[in-house]
Amino acid sequence: MTDEPRPVIAITMGDPAGIGPEIVVRALADPALRGRARYVVYGHNAALTLEADRLGLESDWYRVAHDSDRATRRIDDDVVVFDFPGFEEHTLVNRGPSKAGGLGSKLFVETAIADALRPAGDPRHVDGVVTAPISKASWSMAGFKWPGHTELFAHRCKARRVGMMFVSPRLRVILATIHIPLLKLRDDLTIGRVHDPIDLGHDACRELGIESPRIAVCGLNPHAGEDGLFGDEEERLIVPAIEAARRTGIDAHGPFPADTLFIRAAAGDWDLVVAMYHDQGLIPVKLLGWDKAVNWTVGLPIVRTSPDHGTAFDIGGKARASPGSMIAATELAIDLAARRLAEATPRG
Amino acid sequence: MTDEPRPVIAITMGDPAGIGPEIVVRALADPALRGRARYVVYGHNAALTLEADRLGLESDWYRVAHDSDRATRRIDDDVVVFDFPGFEEHTLVNRGPSKAGGLGSKLFVETAIADALRPAGDPRHVDGVVTAPISKASWSMAGFKWPGHTELFAHRCKARRVGMMFVSPRLRVILATIHIPLLKLRDDLTIGRVHDPIDLGHDACRELGIESPRIAVCGLNPHAGEDGLFGDEEERLIVPAIEAARRTGIDAHGPFPADTLFIRAAAGDWDLVVAMYHDQGLIPVKLLGWDKAVNWTVGLPIVRTSPDHGTAFDIGGKARASPGSMIAATELAIDLAARRLAEATPRG
Repeated sequence: MTDEPRPVIAITMGDPAGIGPEIVVRALADPALRGRARYVVYGHNAALTLEADRLGLESDWYRVAHDSDRATRRIDDDVVVFDFPGFEEHTLVNRGPSKAGGLGSKLFVETAIADALRPAGDPRHVDGVVTAPISKASWSMAGFKWPGHTELFAHRCKARRVGMMFVSPRLRVILATIHIPLLKLRDDLTIGRVHDPIDLGHDACRELGIESPRIAVCGLNPHAGEDGLFGDEEERLIVPAIEAARRTGIDAHGPFPADTLFIRAAAGDWDLVVAMYHDQGLIPVKLLGWDKAVNWTVGLPIVRTSPDHGTAFDIGGKARASPGSMIAATELAIDLAARRLAEATPRG
Repeated sequence: MTDEPRPVIAITMGDPAGIGPEIVVRALADPALRGRARYVVYGHNAALTLEADRLGLESDWYRVAHDSDRATRRIDDDVVVFDFPGFEEHTLVNRGPSKAGGLGSKLFVETAIADALRPAGDPRHVDGVVTAPISKASWSMAGFKWPGHTELFAHRCKARRVGMMFVSPRLRVILATIHIPLLKLRDDLTIGRVHDPIDLGHDACRELGIESPRIAVCGLNPHAGEDGLFGDEEERLIVPAIEAARRTGIDAHGPFPADTLFIRAAAGDWDLVVAMYHDQGLIPVKLLGWDKAVNWTVGLPIVRTSPDHGTAFDIGGKARASPGSMIAATELAIDLAARRLAEATPRG
């Protein structure tokens, strides 16, 4: 119908009491972003409208109850809000985790995932999902035990191997482990857990257009173990994982001391850094890419990105949140979805 | 008998095959630095001279054999080189760890520590020690099992509690644990091991002239444990250590998620960050303070600083090393030594 693919991007509003509604409304007010895709927002229309009014932005979208008949048929508006019932305004008064916030934000995401998994011809199908931040405490109060979006997406998509990858202007980083206690690495870090992000990250970089990604792997210990003086995980787990990846043609190197590796990566020596655990990768990503870094779940059958920050309850509703990372996440989702659409066999 | 104290600073040359000789010669060629202190360099005069010639800098210092009679009497030259015998030039040909490099660099440090511990009136007394990088591999080949300078200084000075603190223009960071395998934190991290750096770091900040240091403590786990969802060390070890420090009047806060804390610290919200382990502290220090960060061993009876980088054997002798961090380390040692001299009771 159009010359180049214009993907449909789902945006989930996240926890109503956090900065989610604000960054969604701000991002949708970005004219460049508006032109590149159609959007379906999964959230509370009242919260979004309130935010638009507060920010002095137009709420120029088509609202439809998510479970109405109308929502099952094709809608061509540039921005559609799938409205969910049960919005409790008190979540906006007491800015913090709440059961209502957990119930709502979980429902937005579940519905968006289900729609992304619909076949391409379905009127509810979306080509990618961008998730504004949820609160794990809210989810917990609502009875949901997921440690985060990533694990939920992996499970619902039946993806056996997924990776949490961060894309920012100066660094690309993928994590070998995510939301686990640091000392649980003793049990959880295996050759496979180190190999997976090398392999998944390689494919992800290629999807970003990097033909032969140069991949550097962090050590686990200080100075990458300093030849076994401070720990043996480098020799026991990381070196074998790198060698296995190299045997399949992946240009992987290391393990390198993490405290200097990110400097070299930011200088352009590496296309991707594989970090062994959450803070090892996130400290440099956030320091160098604040407000520009995107969290991309790689290895899923669907496109899913998110900003790299949390709900920020303390500034929720104060018109102080920057949509920078949300905009970057939406741009990446569009890029990836458009590329996948272009590569798919033209439908008749 | 000058108006303001002009301290005597010991500089140890480090491993001959690394960039130590180059950064020492370059730093001593800095006119601002030359005027602020007298220097005693512990090293191989031939290696230093060679480096000066290669760099086109003057070797304008007074050489004296470290074990000669002359070395036991007062010397007033601005720069003195205490020369050590047994220099093997082959270490400069094969740039890498060697037994000779280990024997030499260990001897420089041991002698400098001994001189720093001499009473103030002793002609060999020095007011502070700046150490160029040694190679743990060289020390190991020479039979020395110290994991680093810090541990050796602590032992020789009989200091029961020392801290590794990093001072850079945008961040001050102190580590709770240093050169241990990451997963050994399970045994080594205790309330005391978290309390010590808060306490030592508080005193150190005050020595730097910060009257009421605002101290932020990192969590150990992702998201600082997210209220116990990802680990219990925050509640079990870190919170009690912070509370103990607060009871003694220290303005300590946390634990905070490490991946965002350093952003706020770099923005000026905190005077000091307490990191739980090596990479958690060193990744941000090196990313933000490259070539300007100084490693300061706090809690010693003597002043000891060093640059924050290693021997860099790969660029040793190639005239490519920056003396930035070495100069910053020397400046900090001078500041600290001058302050301690000024505070000491005037000698008769």
